[in-house]
Amino acid sequence: MSLLVVGTMAFDALETPFGKVDRIIGGSGTYLAWAASNFTNDIDMVSIVGGDFPQEEIQALEDRGVNFDGLEIVPDGKSFFWSGRYHMDMNTRDTLVTDLNVLAQFDPKLPESYTECEYLMLGNLAPSVQISVINQMKKRPKLIVMDTMNFWMSVAMDDLRTVLGMVDVIMVNDSEARELSGEYSIVKAAAKIQAMGPKYVIIKKGEHGALLFHDKNVFFAPALPLEDVFDPTGAGDTFAGGFIGHIARTGDISFSNMKTAIIVGSALASYCVEKFGPSRLKEITKDDIQARMDEFVELVQFDIALVGA
Amino acid sequence: MSLLVVGTMAFDALETPFGKVDRIIGGSGTYLAWAASNFTNDIDMVSIVGGDFPQEEIQALEDRGVNFDGLEIVPDGKSFFWSGRYHMDMNTRDTLVTDLNVLAQFDPKLPESYTECEYLMLGNLAPSVQISVINQMKKRPKLIVMDTMNFWMSVAMDDLRTVLGMVDVIMVNDSEARELSGEYSIVKAAAKIQAMGPKYVIIKKGEHGALLFHDKNVFFAPALPLEDVFDPTGAGDTFAGGFIGHIARTGDISFSNMKTAIIVGSALASYCVEKFGPSRLKEITKDDIQARMDEFVELVQFDIALVGA
Repeated sequence: MSLLVVGTMAFDALETPFGKVDRIIGGSGTYLAWAASNFTNDIDMVSIVGGDFPQEEIQALEDRGVNFDGLEIVPDGKSFFWSGRYHMDMNTRDTLVTDLNVLAQFDPKLPESYTECEYLMLGNLAPSVQISVINQMKKRPKLIVMDTMNFWMSVAMDDLRTVLGMVDVIMVNDSEARELSGEYSIVKAAAKIQAMGPKYVIIKKGEHGALLFHDKNVFFAPALPLEDVFDPTGAGDTFAGGFIGHIARTGDISFSNMKTAIIVGSALASYCVEKFGPSRLKEITKDDIQARMDEFVELVQFDIALVGA
Repeated sequence: MSLLVVGTMAFDALETPFGKVDRIIGGSGTYLAWAASNFTNDIDMVSIVGGDFPQEEIQALEDRGVNFDGLEIVPDGKSFFWSGRYHMDMNTRDTLVTDLNVLAQFDPKLPESYTECEYLMLGNLAPSVQISVINQMKKRPKLIVMDTMNFWMSVAMDDLRTVLGMVDVIMVNDSEARELSGEYSIVKAAAKIQAMGPKYVIIKKGEHGALLFHDKNVFFAPALPLEDVFDPTGAGDTFAGGFIGHIARTGDISFSNMKTAIIVGSALASYCVEKFGPSRLKEITKDDIQARMDEFVELVQFDIALVGA
């Protein structure tokens, strides 16, 4: 089942309470591909990099079944660069530097072979780019999932509204859900966002887990309680990659299977945060993922009590 | 199975983003008793009130099986009064007024009939009072559960350490767990607190649910996603009352049954926050509680996926 992934491939500089790195591989597309490639080797990537992006990083993903015909390389350009500092709670961070570089000119032209993908994962990018990708599809994908962020709500709300009307699933964090809907209650926010288009709304709460809303149904997935969160960068993209990877592998877009997909995404995200950047994702095996899935089952399993005395 | 509850019976003045009340019934003992009396009618209360506390509030709990032989009434005294204002997120609040009144002289003498209780729930009170109650027991209860707060960590840490060595279960919120342990990671905090005495550590995270730690085991209970949280006052005590009430009803102090008890407590807490003070708790039936237990099952149920392609 072919999966099209659109996202950035970039460099990050990060500071967390546990350490600091100056220039490591990052970008939503990178994390999405590392996560999803645990489940399918039929992935098409749409992204843009400068001549400074290491060929071996691309090769490593090619070896896992990711196709880069849709990667634009600008030999004289520099790759997107983001630098941030995390607060002690690891749920909040300050952006120190955002150098768009080649991303400023990103206007993807999809290879012909990409235009009939079955599953489409739109990483956090300008809504106009997300719209352009959807419009280049020859056939409506079985499922379109989008990520976004509050920045686009400030500078491109009209475009964002348009994308919302074109997708099936949106993933946002709790503060983004509040900003997008104007509702403080997460339950009310999810209902308003559904009314804007996406029939499935996933609200990510970091260490507090994630919620999936659809119509009157709600599902809650906890985050695994971890001793240490070393670096949360990419955890949301990894979650998304695990989610769409599981959906693509199973070919099942039911609410029930989305619940499982969220647990898969959470399991992968719990690995992602253990080391800087995507390095932990490069090490884990299917057995590792299965082990953490089993921990999720343990974590929430309880017997139903009858209340009657 | 007899349950001894120690806590305040008091007046509260509250401000939330949804409204304001000047003087309503409150106190940890009140919420504990309303919650636990859904599950057992063999409850002994230890508390202190002034002559201003309404007799009909006591009567209403007596009608549900709560014994007040251990209630000290100081006719010329005034009941404990607390006033607070909640922030928009409803997880944080400012204390505006704390008038200890009769609570300042609280030195409970347990009636003889109380001293062989099987389950003991120590609400948030001075650790010295908690110690005194435990020391008056003729027989060690099957299970001792304590609540506390960060205030006691500042002013009575030595006494608090002593109580910790005497109890089985402690309930604290996440910031209290961090303060008590000096660890930011909740997982590490729970391990350190277990080393201080209580073999079971319950960490409450408000709208983000609750965690139960025991040895190497961990259980997570979500909070139900609610459209509106009207007034969180007493939610923690209600949770505790539901927890100990379920344990007392079933007579089962296993880890597995504690998981169910946490869901019971969460179900009750989800009702508590729907109206000001304990008023919603006075209305609900066993069927209401069962309905919300079923919602918890729905909320976290997922199919286990095998990762293999």
